[in-house]
Amino acid sequence: KIKHGARCVSKSSKDENLFPERVDFPSRHIGPRDQDIVTMLDLLGYKSLDELTNNAVPKQIQLNGLMEIDDPMSEYDLIERVRKISEQNQIWRSFIGMGYHNCCVPHTIMRNMFENPGWTTQYTPYQPEVSQGRLEGLLNYQTMVCDMTGLDVANASLLDEGTAAAEALTLCHRHNKRTKFVVSERLHPQTLAVVTTRLDALGLEVKVLPDVREADFAQRDISAVLLQCPDTRGLVYDYSGLAATAQEHGSLVVVATDLLASALLRPPAECGAALAVGTSQRFGVPLGYGGPHAGFFAAKHALVRLMPGRMVGVTRDASGRDAYRLALQTREQHIRRDKATSNICTAQALLANMSAMYAVYHGPQGLKDIANRVHNATLVLDHGIKQRGHTQTNDVYFDTLHIIPNEEHNVDAIKSRAQEKKVNLRYFEDGAIGVALDETTTMQDVDDLLWIFDCKNVKEVTGTGDARLRSIQNGPFRRTSPFLTHPVFNAHHSETRLVRYMKRLENKDISLVHSMIPLGSCTMKLNSTTEMMPCSFKHFTDIHPFAPLDQSKGYHVLFEELAKDLCAITGYDRVSFQPNSGAQGEYAGLRTIKRYHEFRGDTGRNICLIPVSAHGTNPASAHMAGMRVCAIRVTPTGDVDMEHLKDKVEEHSANISCLMLTYPSTFGVFEERAADVCALVHKHGGQVYLDGANMNAQVGLCRPGDYGSDVSHLNLHKTFCIPHGGGGPGMGPIGVKAHLAPFLPSHPVVDPLADLGEAAHSFGSVSAAPYGSSAILPISWAYIKMMGPKGLKRATQVAILNANYMSRRLEKYYKTLYKGERGLVAHEFIIDVRDLKKTANIEPGDIAKRLMDFGFHAPTMSWPVAGTLMIEPTESEDLQELERFCEALITIRKEIKDIEDGVMDKRLNPLKMAPHTQADVITEDWNRPYSREQAAFPAAFVKGETKIWPTVGRIDDMYGDKHLVCTCPPVIDDF
Amino acid sequence: KIKHGARCVSKSSKDENLFPERVDFPSRHIGPRDQDIVTMLDLLGYKSLDELTNNAVPKQIQLNGLMEIDDPMSEYDLIERVRKISEQNQIWRSFIGMGYHNCCVPHTIMRNMFENPGWTTQYTPYQPEVSQGRLEGLLNYQTMVCDMTGLDVANASLLDEGTAAAEALTLCHRHNKRTKFVVSERLHPQTLAVVTTRLDALGLEVKVLPDVREADFAQRDISAVLLQCPDTRGLVYDYSGLAATAQEHGSLVVVATDLLASALLRPPAECGAALAVGTSQRFGVPLGYGGPHAGFFAAKHALVRLMPGRMVGVTRDASGRDAYRLALQTREQHIRRDKATSNICTAQALLANMSAMYAVYHGPQGLKDIANRVHNATLVLDHGIKQRGHTQTNDVYFDTLHIIPNEEHNVDAIKSRAQEKKVNLRYFEDGAIGVALDETTTMQDVDDLLWIFDCKNVKEVTGTGDARLRSIQNGPFRRTSPFLTHPVFNAHHSETRLVRYMKRLENKDISLVHSMIPLGSCTMKLNSTTEMMPCSFKHFTDIHPFAPLDQSKGYHVLFEELAKDLCAITGYDRVSFQPNSGAQGEYAGLRTIKRYHEFRGDTGRNICLIPVSAHGTNPASAHMAGMRVCAIRVTPTGDVDMEHLKDKVEEHSANISCLMLTYPSTFGVFEERAADVCALVHKHGGQVYLDGANMNAQVGLCRPGDYGSDVSHLNLHKTFCIPHGGGGPGMGPIGVKAHLAPFLPSHPVVDPLADLGEAAHSFGSVSAAPYGSSAILPISWAYIKMMGPKGLKRATQVAILNANYMSRRLEKYYKTLYKGERGLVAHEFIIDVRDLKKTANIEPGDIAKRLMDFGFHAPTMSWPVAGTLMIEPTESEDLQELERFCEALITIRKEIKDIEDGVMDKRLNPLKMAPHTQADVITEDWNRPYSREQAAFPAAFVKGETKIWPTVGRIDDMYGDKHLVCTCPPVIDDF
Ligand SMILES: Cc1ncc(COP(=O)(O)O)c(C=O)c1O
Ligand SMILES: Cc1ncc(COP(=O)(O)O)c(C=O)c1O
Ligand SMILES: O=C([O-])O
Repeated sequence: KIKHGARCVSKSSKDENLFPERVDFPSRHIGPRDQDIVTMLDLLGYKSLDELTNNAVPKQIQLNGLMEIDDPMSEYDLIERVRKISEQNQIWRSFIGMGYHNCCVPHTIMRNMFENPGWTTQYTPYQPEVSQGRLEGLLNYQTMVCDMTGLDVANASLLDEGTAAAEALTLCHRHNKRTKFVVSERLHPQTLAVVTTRLDALGLEVKVLPDVREADFAQRDISAVLLQCPDTRGLVYDYSGLAATAQEHGSLVVVATDLLASALLRPPAECGAALAVGTSQRFGVPLGYGGPHAGFFAAKHALVRLMPGRMVGVTRDASGRDAYRLALQTREQHIRRDKATSNICTAQALLANMSAMYAVYHGPQGLKDIANRVHNATLVLDHGIKQRGHTQTNDVYFDTLHIIPNEEHNVDAIKSRAQEKKVNLRYFEDGAIGVALDETTTMQDVDDLLWIFDCKNVKEVTGTGDARLRSIQNGPFRRTSPFLTHPVFNAHHSETRLVRYMKRLENKDISLVHSMIPLGSCTMKLNSTTEMMPCSFKHFTDIHPFAPLDQSKGYHVLFEELAKDLCAITGYDRVSFQPNSGAQGEYAGLRTIKRYHEFRGDTGRNICLIPVSAHGTNPASAHMAGMRVCAIRVTPTGDVDMEHLKDKVEEHSANISCLMLTYPSTFGVFEERAADVCALVHKHGGQVYLDGANMNAQVGLCRPGDYGSDVSHLNLHKTFCIPHGGGGPGMGPIGVKAHLAPFLPSHPVVDPLADLGEAAHSFGSVSAAPYGSSAILPISWAYIKMMGPKGLKRATQVAILNANYMSRRLEKYYKTLYKGERGLVAHEFIIDVRDLKKTANIEPGDIAKRLMDFGFHAPTMSWPVAGTLMIEPTESEDLQELERFCEALITIRKEIKDIEDGVMDKRLNPLKMAPHTQADVITEDWNRPYSREQAAFPAAFVKGETKIWPTVGRIDDMYGDKHLVCTCPPVIDDF
Repeated sequence: KIKHGARCVSKSSKDENLFPERVDFPSRHIGPRDQDIVTMLDLLGYKSLDELTNNAVPKQIQLNGLMEIDDPMSEYDLIERVRKISEQNQIWRSFIGMGYHNCCVPHTIMRNMFENPGWTTQYTPYQPEVSQGRLEGLLNYQTMVCDMTGLDVANASLLDEGTAAAEALTLCHRHNKRTKFVVSERLHPQTLAVVTTRLDALGLEVKVLPDVREADFAQRDISAVLLQCPDTRGLVYDYSGLAATAQEHGSLVVVATDLLASALLRPPAECGAALAVGTSQRFGVPLGYGGPHAGFFAAKHALVRLMPGRMVGVTRDASGRDAYRLALQTREQHIRRDKATSNICTAQALLANMSAMYAVYHGPQGLKDIANRVHNATLVLDHGIKQRGHTQTNDVYFDTLHIIPNEEHNVDAIKSRAQEKKVNLRYFEDGAIGVALDETTTMQDVDDLLWIFDCKNVKEVTGTGDARLRSIQNGPFRRTSPFLTHPVFNAHHSETRLVRYMKRLENKDISLVHSMIPLGSCTMKLNSTTEMMPCSFKHFTDIHPFAPLDQSKGYHVLFEELAKDLCAITGYDRVSFQPNSGAQGEYAGLRTIKRYHEFRGDTGRNICLIPVSAHGTNPASAHMAGMRVCAIRVTPTGDVDMEHLKDKVEEHSANISCLMLTYPSTFGVFEERAADVCALVHKHGGQVYLDGANMNAQVGLCRPGDYGSDVSHLNLHKTFCIPHGGGGPGMGPIGVKAHLAPFLPSHPVVDPLADLGEAAHSFGSVSAAPYGSSAILPISWAYIKMMGPKGLKRATQVAILNANYMSRRLEKYYKTLYKGERGLVAHEFIIDVRDLKKTANIEPGDIAKRLMDFGFHAPTMSWPVAGTLMIEPTESEDLQELERFCEALITIRKEIKDIEDGVMDKRLNPLKMAPHTQADVITEDWNRPYSREQAAFPAAFVKGETKIWPTVGRIDDMYGDKHLVCTCPPVIDDF
């Protein structure tokens, strides 16, 4: 898919001085001003950025010259250009369905959440005291999913319906240890593809049945049944008998379902499902050519501790009040590594929040009205279709019909009438036609659909009998149980109220609009408005992922240009955009490698070497890919222990599938011998997977593809400016060397490998959508186009400068744990605070919480090294902000000194009591050995008029995990 | 222009139940839910909204049936429709100039200010303690204007360049009492029109000279000279000699200028100007077909107390710290009425803030770079033009050329080449052509321009000699003085920094995103996202007001539809969109009336009857219109004193021009005899001007045009949902009965009366743009389209319900001063707190400030009755919010009771010390007779996690006015 060769031509001309370029984006993106950079280099003893980074990056891997990327465009030219590209997409009316539905995205949610950096730029709410807004939104989401499905617990989103279904089955396997699965043929094809791809690698057996009700449970060896209802053709059917039988035989029933249908239909739990999954896209999230949308996941209470992904729970804070936080972290990969419940890390928090807000906005009655409207339109359409003598095979349905045209009409004729009306339908291979209606369907739409099928119009149809006879409302599938009864879904229905609710939640959280978020390994840099703007363009938002290719040309232009640029940046040859998170990219990359070996007949290569310092998703992904993880030691300086590696590669030589390496290392250092490591693995027939999470230290300076890596994911939500969204969306496309290209992910509906023809040998699908979360790719595309090759390189250099500057500024107070051979760190650094436990009983968490009193989000805590803090400033933070953060850390160190010196109490001190809320300090009963002012205004730059307050006190994690509550607590705050 | 007769047809059909309308906007706009409305009506003793409003509105004036307005559209259909309308505008490249320039609106400012309700929905910062963000932004604006013009003081914006110029001359008149003015013919034609229109009414004499340097000052009778530099043709010339002569003879020099040119050119003050005016549009505000943009106004220090409009000044708060507030209020109409410095009330705060932020973003060097780029492009163009043998008449210029084509080329040929390139130029009547370049001009643009004039291209042109020889930089006009040296213009140049700065200012202020702003007479209701969205559409933002009509069809469709709807709502026959504020509408309406009388030969009608209860802008506007104000008493119940009115109309019968009436009265009551009042005035040959500020109590219930009024302005920024923007933009179109239509405002470039042909007899122009602030009209248009006739009526009814409900809920604690005959108020009500001064030494201001501690913005204070508070909840606030506000007021009443009872000190109490800042309550030195908790959390609903803090303590107005500082104070807050 990637066309190479278009070398960029510099736009400079002799008239440069007369018409200085309008291009100034790099200086908007990069924080420090030129004169600050001089000052900072000075402190470090370097004359130039080049000198600095020539010393930071090992000589042997340095890139010579600039990347082959076009010269930068201005923000204004870029918007013109991307608008034109977007308009190459044609927006036809879609009735394709298949898990993707048009919906009305409430404009106020679009503007005040999706287009608001106050909602898009936070990190995952690992620091709950400054994330209560986001956490409340996600708890609303969980409550909504529980209510709609009837189940007890739900998580705070997964990547999409396909992966949610796969995760559900692996959960069942963990639960009952059985290895056989029955899966309905009537799942959406992409769900089926993802599920079979995923289970295959784990050696789990999948039997696909046209009618799962025929499954045989007698052997008591079926772990679970996965079915969809309404199924992919739209049929609603009774699976409660199946569920009862399954349960008797110790099998679980997993139902893929539709949240809107659940407003009218008996919900899965009431039909015997133990788990329900699906997508919440149609709850107020644009189609966006396939994503990002939130996948949902709900289960019975008994399964809660096996659930994948993040879950918000209720707990209490230091003063005993209700507070929210991420619950049951102990299930996750950063703790359990290859034994984690799954590899999911970045999920779809922002989209889950949007969907939850959609439910808050409409409330139960609003959703019922919408569902009825859609259903009634479908009844009318069905009535008309049948009157004309076509066959509609679904006896009961919600919004989707499955039509077999009568003899008078052949499919092609119908198709051409549809095209005349610019309408997309679903065309089955057997000549049947699917039509799915949705919230946006108007009477005119139904008239057009009736016309397409050569039927009478709505007026005529409804004149001839009551279309509503077949309504769910009159039958046994009718939902009788209430839902969304919690006050939060019944209070904010006027726009004024909703806006205030959204703003109130927004203002509880620290995001990039307030201060730096120096989370190591997360690259929380500027997400500029210009980058974000195209994500709201109608021609990007309103297109179905399975729309014919000639209607989605705009997206494909974008994919191609971005792929080309990412290749130029990484040294790879082809990119797959299917993985919609970093971890998903790891998984896809490993499966690609696995398939490569297998295809070559090089069987038995099943071992994945992973340094112990790796991110937890690495072993978790390897495990999911069916590999055996072999841990490699690291030296005290954080490098791969070459001796140990040598031992291991020799020991396992014939069985080595690959090595996973993070570069610069998770310790924030450019190892000298990365190229040697790669060479060694290659020598033994293994492949190298380079975890691209730290690309922000490499872009423009060195390229994985050059120094020996075969495949990498790129967290576009780190280095390439997609905002983190409070825990997603993200994108984790993978780049590969040419030899791996044929084995990249494919897709059952729109195949991204189509251009390879017979040469393609994909391992399968990893995401529901062919190109993952396509709708946020314009962000990364725009970033690269506006920075140009020089700007990108400079960004990396300044990222490295900022980290080294901070490390140096802090050195008298905190020791930087790892540095490279020439005494430099990469783009992040780890400060060691382990001693403080002994000297002052202070742990990293105490420092993290105290930083909140200064208005800061903590650095990464106790990862990759327990008892430390990892700081990544990124290039977007300027000198003044770095100084403020350093001042905070230095002030804290002095407070610790007071404890060490016995001047301050070991228990009752500003760190242990941090963070301080307003209620804490505005009380008559202050009885602490430090002042209120010290508590709340610990530095001169912290002032009442701009102070960012934690809204709850220190969270009690234990309590929450012991008394697990994962839906909205009974009483709502009456604001 | 208005086509009538299109009666709306109801969209309802038999299939209503099958396809319930997607239309739910009225229930999103209106706050209280149906069940709440029942509860509220119950308390008041009414069975239905109709019963309530039938009792509130006098029978004789009630409208029968519904207004002739189309049924409502959904938010989604509306956006589709308005997008199509917008696309009827064609966006050609404009080089017209004339005070309107393309510019690059920084996307981050557009999104985070203009599209952010946190920035658009505050009121004018009359409550400075909760408005420090907005005030800081406006102070930046004033500083920027001072720096660019070189003058000492500037105000916080006027409506546009035209009115700013007129205001400058009337200031000169107030200053030196002279009545003769010399005005340059080389002003932009719209400036000239507005100035002459305005001066004419005041009996001031204007002499228009082709070259003002020929003015004769010898008689010492010239008040001032108004000139433009660069002039409308683009010529830069030396007027310092003229200025010196003028000064010697006691005359002032007013210069209309261009802020961007001032980055390169010696600024007006250095050339001897005493005043400078202009528009700051090209500093980051879209063209928007003429507005809204901020007009700027700067003067020498000596003139400060005569300056019109609002001015931000530095003062100190109760604890002695720097704080901002509106300075010198004593100059304004709400105090000085017809002796005020001007009638300006709503100005252009939001646009001023955007322009200021543009300067903050670019800083001095950035602005110089932009100015140089534009200037250099102009030099190249000039070079090419001259090479081809055309004449370019401007010897020195900044960005605008005045070209006389050589004999080979006639204008038509050039024009058709321009059209071929979709380029608009300025075509002078004498065959000359104007070309104005701007920030967006690319080399391609210059190439196209050269091609249009049949010249060589840029490359060829620059190859033949140095175009830069004529640069300002090499001549005596070069600017040498520094500007924007204040740190605020030198700190926020990265996007990260700018976003944080904008967010920091946003979060200091109370806006509608936080809580209700129940300002009587201001109608602070929902400004919905859907209404706001079209304001960002490219086809609305990027069009020059003087673009040919066939390129602006979209706007004209919108004008026509909105005019038709406003006529249906008011009962008038024609609407003029020229006035861009309510006060401007008053002025335009009065001038229309005046012209009507004069045209009919009914001379001598010069008296304007105004009840003493009227808003201060009424007498100020009457004065400016050259009328004599005759005050009419009101009865103790707030009605017009009929006896007094009768006396006066009889006394002045032949001289009565008109009566200005506010309805419902400014006391919030529907007078029974409004129709009688109108009839009486008519009987004596006078016209009735009905101030439409209170239309929110009338829409759908009664129509001014029906009960006797001849003309009204409609504050679209009140009743019709344009957000207040912190003090503008607004729109004050006027509706008139048919007999007044020919006398409405005209325009020298695009005449809105063109359709009337010979029948038009306009009095002149009131705004620079033909249709005022066109770009915000989509907001009101959308509101009406989405509400429909029933929704609009219901909104009015709920507005009246909300006011009556609050009045009733509070009656045990606060007396409502005025009620109608049946015991009801209209949409607002006045509570009397005058007694509290005696009983507890409490003034309205104390209550206002104490409300801030509850997170509320105060109601209107001491207007229209001193010592009272006027509360207008609007229909958008729901029951819960009304209850919260009532609870706050009731709690405050109890605190006052404690003072009355001697339980609390008369000086040291929570009211006198309000508002309380964080610094106040988070201190070890608390020594007040009430607790910190009572200070900061005075009600259960005020909680730390959602508290909105005033960022400064009680403002000391006196201090600020005595020590006037109206530019940024020396030291910037280091955040
Ligand atoms: C080193 C490393 N690898 C992989 C990941 C996983 O990426 P994602 O969160 O996008 O799934 C992360 C995320 O923080 C990471 O830091
Ligand atoms: C009764 C009344 N008339 C006129 C005006 C002036 O309107 P504007 O502020 O739009 O100039 C106001 C503004 O508040 C008002 O309340
Ligand atoms: O500004 C007002 O007087 O409303």
